[in-house]
Amino acid sequence: MSAPRRYEQIADLLAQRMAQGIYPVGDRLPSIRTLCREQGISITTAQAAYARLEASGLAEARPRSGYYVLPQRRLDQLPTVSRPAQRPLEVSQWDQVLTIVEPVPGFQPLHRLGSGTPALDAATLRPLVQLLSGRYHAADARHLGYDSLAGDPALRLQVARLATASGCLLHPDDVLVTTGCQEALAIALGVLTSPGDVVAVDSPGFYGAMQILAAHGLKALEIPTDPRLGMSLEALELALDQWPVRAILVTPTCNNPLGYTMPDDRKRDLVALASRHDVAIIEDDIYGDLAFDNPRPLALKACDTEERVLLCSSFSKTLAPGLRVGWIAPGRYRDQALHEKYVSTGASATPPQRAVAAFIDKGRYQRHLREICRRYRRQRDIMIEWVARHFPAATRISHPQGGFQLWLEMPEGFDSLRLNERLASERLQVAPGPMFSASGKYRHCLRLSYAASPTAELEAAVRRIGEVAGELLDAEG
Amino acid sequence: MSAPRRYEQIADLLAQRMAQGIYPVGDRLPSIRTLCREQGISITTAQAAYARLEASGLAEARPRSGYYVLPQRRLDQLPTVSRPAQRPLEVSQWDQVLTIVEPVPGFQPLHRLGSGTPALDAATLRPLVQLLSGRYHAADARHLGYDSLAGDPALRLQVARLATASGCLLHPDDVLVTTGCQEALAIALGVLTSPGDVVAVDSPGFYGAMQILAAHGLKALEIPTDPRLGMSLEALELALDQWPVRAILVTPTCNNPLGYTMPDDRKRDLVALASRHDVAIIEDDIYGDLAFDNPRPLALKACDTEERVLLCSSFSKTLAPGLRVGWIAPGRYRDQALHEKYVSTGASATPPQRAVAAFIDKGRYQRHLREICRRYRRQRDIMIEWVARHFPAATRISHPQGGFQLWLEMPEGFDSLRLNERLASERLQVAPGPMFSASGKYRHCLRLSYAASPTAELEAAVRRIGEVAGELLDAEG
Ligand SMILES: Cc1ncc(COP(=O)(O)O)c(C=O)c1O
Ligand SMILES: Cc1ncc(COP(=O)(O)O)c(C=O)c1O
Repeated sequence: MSAPRRYEQIADLLAQRMAQGIYPVGDRLPSIRTLCREQGISITTAQAAYARLEASGLAEARPRSGYYVLPQRRLDQLPTVSRPAQRPLEVSQWDQVLTIVEPVPGFQPLHRLGSGTPALDAATLRPLVQLLSGRYHAADARHLGYDSLAGDPALRLQVARLATASGCLLHPDDVLVTTGCQEALAIALGVLTSPGDVVAVDSPGFYGAMQILAAHGLKALEIPTDPRLGMSLEALELALDQWPVRAILVTPTCNNPLGYTMPDDRKRDLVALASRHDVAIIEDDIYGDLAFDNPRPLALKACDTEERVLLCSSFSKTLAPGLRVGWIAPGRYRDQALHEKYVSTGASATPPQRAVAAFIDKGRYQRHLREICRRYRRQRDIMIEWVARHFPAATRISHPQGGFQLWLEMPEGFDSLRLNERLASERLQVAPGPMFSASGKYRHCLRLSYAASPTAELEAAVRRIGEVAGELLDAEG
Repeated sequence: MSAPRRYEQIADLLAQRMAQGIYPVGDRLPSIRTLCREQGISITTAQAAYARLEASGLAEARPRSGYYVLPQRRLDQLPTVSRPAQRPLEVSQWDQVLTIVEPVPGFQPLHRLGSGTPALDAATLRPLVQLLSGRYHAADARHLGYDSLAGDPALRLQVARLATASGCLLHPDDVLVTTGCQEALAIALGVLTSPGDVVAVDSPGFYGAMQILAAHGLKALEIPTDPRLGMSLEALELALDQWPVRAILVTPTCNNPLGYTMPDDRKRDLVALASRHDVAIIEDDIYGDLAFDNPRPLALKACDTEERVLLCSSFSKTLAPGLRVGWIAPGRYRDQALHEKYVSTGASATPPQRAVAAFIDKGRYQRHLREICRRYRRQRDIMIEWVARHFPAATRISHPQGGFQLWLEMPEGFDSLRLNERLASERLQVAPGPMFSASGKYRHCLRLSYAASPTAELEAAVRRIGEVAGELLDAEG
């Protein structure tokens, strides 16, 4: 991935200083000229940096005067640290998940604000579509036999190569191809647990993983999570002392739904903690390559010298979910994982694997990531601005470090399920908070996707959702 | 599927009479002229029928005399009725399965005689390959989002239509698309059972299903199986009385590995028996469309008025396994099955689903079945002839009613695992019998695929396997 452009770096620096109170709300920011001198940049770069701050709603230009710090909603009104139950619970909420993953026939949402689908209209994805075709001009179907159980060797090689970016040294044989990250997670849990076992999870966390716990008869131990730092290691340690935890399931990089990336030192501490308690870690890295930082953040697995991390991912968020190309690097559990893989689907479909392998091999993947991350970053800022503008003032907003999901926290008492009911007739839908909890917490929260291009209609939809949210809140208060 | 041609019917009729002893070994068969009169057929048809009998090694032409009955190995030397342990057992044998489904790197078998891959070189498959390409000339990847969890609606419609051929009335919503029949079976077992539960299975039976039992902590209760009639209903009834059986798992049509099709009345009896004991049936119909009979045999599900049959299938044997397009019609268990599906893989890959749906829609599927069934039937006869010629005289041979797998039973004491060890250096491999048992029975049996075109090299391979088998048998005796 290319470095963020210079003006982006400068804008981030200024935003950081604003967050730290170095430039308080209402103050004038350094003039263009001062900024140029201080940072050794050109006037164009400085102007672009301010334009960016303005676009993200952090500063405003006052004619013939300069740029001023706006009331910041972005960095200092993050969601609060979550406070889940902290005891092992059976997972429910399937009905809510179902309405998002399989909407009732006929319900065609206007905008896919509640969905986990990435932007599929990117020009940089086109070569993938062509590869998906081009591979099959062969005269017969001989390449469509039972493929290797572990997956297409060319794809496993490419995955192993890509993994170096997150600090992982993988051999192609360490990688098993799966039918999406979902199968990777199901395999990991299948390998590590038996019914009745307890699994520690970040909370809020990915509903699909939670539903695996439900199906496998496992109990979720939801660990409080900081919207900037991730799973509380302090709470996790207490939990590991208190409960017979069989596995820790985390999405530490570009978390879904909170968007944080756990800092490197905390990642190391997490792996060390797991090691002290001899617990395996299931690392869900599905959004990891969509980090806005360059180079992308480390994987937990990069800090793991004991092969105790089972790294799970897929190309569903970076490329397209309909390919169903995922993978798992199961560490010391490879043999059991291969058995689970055989048992659950036999093998994964061959054509998409080959297309993805060729796409990466031709350098198209890196190119696509560069483009799409730039786009998502911009769309994040715009969506945050829209929410700040159109949602009730008390709305807390996450500040994603990558990916395309925003997490909103409304005051307690707000009901995101009611919100969806109210929105249904207008064909609008958000992902309601309780999906992301084992036990239906986060009713006052919701997730909004910013994967789609920011059009006027999209802003109108966000405005409308904000309005209805405000009405519900007023009715509540 | 088109009717078997007239000469094929006549040949089968004569073969049947030979099996019944109406035409004993060494006798002269009716002359061409007599046959024409008796059956009301043309001379060409009668000649073709005799040519067919000759090709399958059942009769021989003696110049200026007529056709004579050869010692029949085919119909009267069927494998014996199996005698498995008949108590619930944990499933092992993963190592043997692994060597077949994931051969050691570098081991490239000369002929895939041990494999479950169908003939992929058929000209009638070419349109599928083209459809797999053609669908993707769209400009972007928008069709590669999260597809419907239940699967592509167009495909589900086609599956529901096809199912009428086996007597099933399915609505497209009764069908869930899966990643191969393997996932369908895993979903069915996931829905019906919890660890420790007992599942009745036909024995010998499909190893992949057996391995699901192993992974899910289930116990297999292997039911004796007749090589012509299928699972012994008498033994099953005793088992249902004696053990807490949660599900009955059967492959009643074109069974793998035995090749029988359970007669319709026994299918009805099986469903009635399950009903009396209130047990669910998992019906694996993966080879069902490859029946040599026309119309194809009923599915158990066609006899089920209580929605207790979970019908599982895929296009892996009829089209190509690399597509990983399977499906399940879970009857009354639809909601739970949808949950299991979501949990195990989220959805199945979109491109192959669309290609298969279009292939069926254009009438290509039926056309392919017609061709490929004719081919497999012929190849069955040739393979039986080769085995009769090249294997030890005591070899018992199944008489498949469809599909492309032959089951051989050698005298007790024979070791098919030793056979594979001996064959490895010559890059030959069979599917050893113990794979098909929960508990490693059938060491003296093996499965041979006749999917490949009958070439001289293939015959040489079969001859060589027969030779080595003979040596092992002699060493044993
Ligand atoms: C964090 C996380 N993990 C896993 C998945 C499942 O990914 P896939 O579609 O590749 O199965 C998702 C999809 O929403 C996700 O958000
Ligand atoms: C009887 C039977 N059922 C199921 C399967 C698995 O089929 P699929 O490749 O579609 O997962 C096979 C494959 O060998 C089989 O023989």
